[in-house]
Amino acid sequence: MIKTDILIIGAGPTGLFAVFEAGLLKLKCHLIDALPQPGGQLAELYPKKPIYDIPGFPEVLAGELVDNLMKQIEPFQPGFTLGERAETIEKQEDGSFIVTSTSGLKHQASVVAIAGGLGSFEPRKPLIPNIQQFEEKGVAYFIRNPEVFRNKKVIIAGGGDSALDWSIFLSEVASEVTLVHRRNEFRGALDSVEKVQELKKLGKITLITPAEVVGLRGNEHLDAVVIQKADKSEETLETDYFIPLFGLSPKLGPIADWGLEIEKNAIKVNNSLDYQTNIPGIYAIGDVNTYPGKLKLILCGFHEATLMCQSAYQRIFPDKRYVMKYTTVGGVHGFDGSKKEAPKAVVKSID
Amino acid sequence: MIKTDILIIGAGPTGLFAVFEAGLLKLKCHLIDALPQPGGQLAELYPKKPIYDIPGFPEVLAGELVDNLMKQIEPFQPGFTLGERAETIEKQEDGSFIVTSTSGLKHQASVVAIAGGLGSFEPRKPLIPNIQQFEEKGVAYFIRNPEVFRNKKVIIAGGGDSALDWSIFLSEVASEVTLVHRRNEFRGALDSVEKVQELKKLGKITLITPAEVVGLRGNEHLDAVVIQKADKSEETLETDYFIPLFGLSPKLGPIADWGLEIEKNAIKVNNSLDYQTNIPGIYAIGDVNTYPGKLKLILCGFHEATLMCQSAYQRIFPDKRYVMKYTTVGGVHGFDGSKKEAPKAVVKSID
Repeated sequence: MIKTDILIIGAGPTGLFAVFEAGLLKLKCHLIDALPQPGGQLAELYPKKPIYDIPGFPEVLAGELVDNLMKQIEPFQPGFTLGERAETIEKQEDGSFIVTSTSGLKHQASVVAIAGGLGSFEPRKPLIPNIQQFEEKGVAYFIRNPEVFRNKKVIIAGGGDSALDWSIFLSEVASEVTLVHRRNEFRGALDSVEKVQELKKLGKITLITPAEVVGLRGNEHLDAVVIQKADKSEETLETDYFIPLFGLSPKLGPIADWGLEIEKNAIKVNNSLDYQTNIPGIYAIGDVNTYPGKLKLILCGFHEATLMCQSAYQRIFPDKRYVMKYTTVGGVHGFDGSKKEAPKAVVKSID
Repeated sequence: MIKTDILIIGAGPTGLFAVFEAGLLKLKCHLIDALPQPGGQLAELYPKKPIYDIPGFPEVLAGELVDNLMKQIEPFQPGFTLGERAETIEKQEDGSFIVTSTSGLKHQASVVAIAGGLGSFEPRKPLIPNIQQFEEKGVAYFIRNPEVFRNKKVIIAGGGDSALDWSIFLSEVASEVTLVHRRNEFRGALDSVEKVQELKKLGKITLITPAEVVGLRGNEHLDAVVIQKADKSEETLETDYFIPLFGLSPKLGPIADWGLEIEKNAIKVNNSLDYQTNIPGIYAIGDVNTYPGKLKLILCGFHEATLMCQSAYQRIFPDKRYVMKYTTVGGVHGFDGSKKEAPKAVVKSID
């Protein structure tokens, strides 16, 4: 059982920044995210895209912003349950909540903050009849740890940035990389397309286009895939892994059944106070919530996370009165003993 | 008469970022600020102090943050009326407002956004009977343009960072710099104190401590100051300028008489929608406003500015429906013809 003060569901920018604001109040956080790494969409969907509307950044790459946030919250040592979805929630007699994630792991917290963005990102799966049978047994929709593929035969399917970029990356790791796409044209960053072209010429990536993977073979583990070409001819190719990268589709998922008031696929909150949902102790912040005038912007999530933490503090310590101290004055005191603060003024005579 | 879409009163971080969000909606902004430069407190009071709670910046100097915001809003060409206070407001028949600043300059706008922080910063003036007579005639509370002091005799009074830093700066500009302080000890950054010590040894700054300026002499313009030492002896010193730097004290000022609902020296707003005040068309954002759960944090001002702009847009264009486009997708199109956008994906076949 993991115990924490605020359990944050969703490790996108809003969830990450909540760790910082909670930390200033000496509250500990743990985050659950369905993706294999923190950062949400920014890390998974467009790490190399520039964002222009983060205050104070005329331009910042999405991946850079995530790195900065991770650095900013480091002193507050958040815990992470990654690659798992929050499945169920149970309210305890003492007012706390227990949230169970996909693997059965239980997380207990006084406050739950849902920072779920557009929902948990579920991979779009190809329509191959027996694909479920090979999930975690040769079929991977995410690449959690590239080392798994070292010196293995890998077949990647897809025609976008993920398929291109992982083909490039794994060409240095796997023993064989084959990229299958149902068109001849790929859609992605120019340099990624050119790099795949080059690796193909060097024999480091095998391209099969236009073609589709239509069948999977194996016993305990995947052994081979059946590839169908444009002329309907089929070919069976031996492989250790099949990685279909057809994009992600966000789904509110099990959270939709937690008894929260939902409107247009988002969770209704009290925006005139603290972004709390209809269930006291459960908050919703960032893109996942809705209220009159709501804008799905990262900078709004930062504000919502901050007000949520103040309210969470009052819930956890109903008798304490927190007096806000500016970081410029009080500095930042990490749970790891680290300390950042402005250089102190000296009082010194001049003679 | 200056005409604009949104007149922003206060050019601190919240006011500056409002220009960006307004710009995305193709609304033009003009800012009025009592200080001689944009940035509010951050630029005037603690430009060299680190801030730790701006999302995405593990640490940023206040002055750096202002520079970044100025760069971020550059494409939207805001206008500035600096060194002037907003004095009066008149509602026009067409629903617009005319705001007159200290010099009598009139600014007309459909929407007024008060981003006044803690108020307009008024200098703390020394208690010298005839000081008002010499204001703008040898007595300066702010240094708007250091070139005014080139090859002039300057007497600075004060014992904090401003007095130290301007003494250092003007020692390269003025013909003589004398620093008067009522104690022997100065309070400021260590390197500033040490630098003044060094410049004193080199004869570039004259120090008179403990002492106070108690009188001013001159006809049309200041000619000399009377300095009283600890032993009550007096000395008259010829000078061209007297610059008392005793700190700034924020005052809500004339805005308090605009008919806005005020609570604890702050302007009440509707936080459940758009941060509008009790007068339709006048908004209050950032530290100057108050609502249940209000936190005086820069990041909250950014959020409030953003929602204000959306509401202002609807007020200015009641019949248009604005569909938000993410900057990551739509880019940023400046009023100066500049364009920033993410590199486009290519669709390209690989052979």
